[in-house]
Amino acid sequence: MPTTDLRPFFNPKSLVLVGASERPGSIGGMLSKHLLEGKFEGDLYFTNLKRESIFDQKCYPNLEALPGDPELAIIAIPAKFVPAELEKCAKRNIHHVIVLSGGFSEVGNVDLENELIRVAKEHDIRIIGPNCAGIVSTHTKMVAAMENTYIPGGLSIISQSGALAGSMMLRATYEGLGIDKWISFGNASDVEESELLKYLAEEKDSPTKVIFLYLEGATHGRKLISEMSKATNLKPVIFLKGGRTAIGNKAAMTHTASLGGDPKIYKSIAKQTKAIWVESLDEAFDTYSALAPYLDRGGKRTAIVTNSGGPGVLISDNLDMLGLELNQPSDVLREQLKDLPAACPRENPFDLLGDATPERYELALRALASSGEFDTIITVMVPPGDADINGVANVMVSIANENHNTAIIGCLLAGKKVEKAVKILRDNDIPTFPTPKRAAWGAHAINMWKEIRES
Amino acid sequence: MPTTDLRPFFNPKSLVLVGASERPGSIGGMLSKHLLEGKFEGDLYFTNLKRESIFDQKCYPNLEALPGDPELAIIAIPAKFVPAELEKCAKRNIHHVIVLSGGFSEVGNVDLENELIRVAKEHDIRIIGPNCAGIVSTHTKMVAAMENTYIPGGLSIISQSGALAGSMMLRATYEGLGIDKWISFGNASDVEESELLKYLAEEKDSPTKVIFLYLEGATHGRKLISEMSKATNLKPVIFLKGGRTAIGNKAAMTHTASLGGDPKIYKSIAKQTKAIWVESLDEAFDTYSALAPYLDRGGKRTAIVTNSGGPGVLISDNLDMLGLELNQPSDVLREQLKDLPAACPRENPFDLLGDATPERYELALRALASSGEFDTIITVMVPPGDADINGVANVMVSIANENHNTAIIGCLLAGKKVEKAVKILRDNDIPTFPTPKRAAWGAHAINMWKEIRES
Repeated sequence: MPTTDLRPFFNPKSLVLVGASERPGSIGGMLSKHLLEGKFEGDLYFTNLKRESIFDQKCYPNLEALPGDPELAIIAIPAKFVPAELEKCAKRNIHHVIVLSGGFSEVGNVDLENELIRVAKEHDIRIIGPNCAGIVSTHTKMVAAMENTYIPGGLSIISQSGALAGSMMLRATYEGLGIDKWISFGNASDVEESELLKYLAEEKDSPTKVIFLYLEGATHGRKLISEMSKATNLKPVIFLKGGRTAIGNKAAMTHTASLGGDPKIYKSIAKQTKAIWVESLDEAFDTYSALAPYLDRGGKRTAIVTNSGGPGVLISDNLDMLGLELNQPSDVLREQLKDLPAACPRENPFDLLGDATPERYELALRALASSGEFDTIITVMVPPGDADINGVANVMVSIANENHNTAIIGCLLAGKKVEKAVKILRDNDIPTFPTPKRAAWGAHAINMWKEIRES
Repeated sequence: MPTTDLRPFFNPKSLVLVGASERPGSIGGMLSKHLLEGKFEGDLYFTNLKRESIFDQKCYPNLEALPGDPELAIIAIPAKFVPAELEKCAKRNIHHVIVLSGGFSEVGNVDLENELIRVAKEHDIRIIGPNCAGIVSTHTKMVAAMENTYIPGGLSIISQSGALAGSMMLRATYEGLGIDKWISFGNASDVEESELLKYLAEEKDSPTKVIFLYLEGATHGRKLISEMSKATNLKPVIFLKGGRTAIGNKAAMTHTASLGGDPKIYKSIAKQTKAIWVESLDEAFDTYSALAPYLDRGGKRTAIVTNSGGPGVLISDNLDMLGLELNQPSDVLREQLKDLPAACPRENPFDLLGDATPERYELALRALASSGEFDTIITVMVPPGDADINGVANVMVSIANENHNTAIIGCLLAGKKVEKAVKILRDNDIPTFPTPKRAAWGAHAINMWKEIRES
């Protein structure tokens, strides 16, 4: 019986890279570099028929020559040699193999992929790939992937598209969002999306807070529905389906040679399994960004605190379209806002006017956050003239750290002038968004997870 | 009869700032600084009762003391003094006045605003404001506004919200998009959105290629419809309505005290007048960005050239939703792609595979662009490993400069790794977008303007 324990794919005691290399641009070359730079803490072995060392790391001619049995093998050699290499893995008692090599069913070589599967089954070997971009597990320092730009954090990505997943890692880093596990599963010849979902959701003491699944076509639909339903009981699962339309679905079938099925079915699968359905990368990232610090918050009652009316209006439009409320303050709360300048309306959106100081924001935010009348407060800051934007960011951090049940999120427009303030917020786990539409989505995301949790 | 010539608001031979100051954070202080830093080329006068100079610029006690009659006055003194100051403007033969001062109808002082209007009418003075953030006219170097971060270019912004407009200027600069005129018209006591639209559309030898209007509520609906219809015959007008929903409309009425009317009516006004209706700041900027170099292109036939299947699939989904086509190449064109590696599908999306070089992009882009089979080519670049992203950007520039009728736009994912390539594209007027959804919108925008042009 092949093992169902996927742990060695992410946290092996030892691993071997088959096809290590120093050649820039080659898969073996990138993997060698990334594994070394990642400072994997277990035993790391390289094999290459022709080299005695790779980047100053001792290199063995083949698996037979290794001084110990690694738990995981990562294969980056030409496709035609992979089945034979699997036989050798079996002899070294290896039961987990990541195959990065391309040249299997995705280019029509179905027989070669069938041979790969046959050998794996014969020896109880589990395979991720072939034709994948690898795995990164940041907290165990295993960087077995073609991309290695990341910050450790709470987002795990499961993607059918390797390069798209790579771009997501780069973007997450650019936006200060941290990653736990990153998995490109390629042709899904053995381990597929549903088994990965299950592992990420159920893993003990996992740093994964939120799972993001990018899928073009499910390998086994029923299994996906069943595992997605179980996973969303434990953690939010953000689901982006490539090929949701007729044109997109046709493109997806060309890309992954997967049977996309009726493109409309996936949205109902998301609903049925309580996954968070998103339709763009922005929505996916913004959902994670909003949820990560606020997994226990949420609700429809939304306040906007702003120093400019326009963004308040645009956010209001988006809240309406997303089904959230812009409820008005009680008389008690209005009274608590009495020290605001007379010209500030005691209405939601709370317009603190163009000359708003950090002190004015503090007064309003503290009163609103502690009132219990709002589930989420979107704090807008537009930088007129020399306004103290960083001061407002610091106020948001201190209000967020006070003991209340309100989610504080930011909407900072725009560009270079707010870069420092955005960094202050990110460093303190306050989600912040660059446009009114995306800030409204952030409030929506927090509420979606609350409704799923409580359903 | 008051003049209908708005030219002195943007290109005065001489101007006076009433209420000049050195005080940081004050309106007069910001305006003094920005006017000087902007290096206005006409005669620039400052007045302030108590100062003989402001930032080393000679300062007069009042309008009476000026050595000449300025064409334009910019007023930044407390609201209650403004009507009397208008009387003094009349004595100096000034017929164009921008009033930045707040404290009129927007805070309930309707009588004071009526008095302002009365004095203006009596003396044939045209007013922009009050309660506005000013005007920037980059090509005439007149920076009479509370924000002064810009690159000169072809986008003109007319906004009812001053701070939102300020954030747009900052964002445009951040994204390398250039601005011609930037107008915050505040309470619209006299000059309103429709007259500004008319001026920007009809101005002779205008650097304005595209007009962006942000409106919360029209002052005169019929006039807006009439002028918008005329303007869109001349130039693309991007229209973002704040308060499109019930909740948003209520917020807009609080903000600008304007009669929003039925929020749904504005979308049909856009359709009727052939304005480009957008529902977010991203859509607004992406429309300008896509249109600016391609005012004469457009069409539904869209090609995707990519080195990663996933983004191709996501773009395809968005093209479908926007009503564009992903048409397949003719046999002749397929034949022209024969030198691509065998594994590259001769299908649209054209997947050049993860190891695509600039040369491979060049072969595909040149064949597609010169085939006449596509109106727009979205060129996707995802940076796997050490791919030569900048090389691909340079290829895009050279193909775009060849003589054909195809719009070339980019979709570069993601983050820091593509920053340099994005800059190469922007410096060469190739629109580029950070996500699949926004790239598809770019193709859509170019086509929308074509359909408007030809209708």
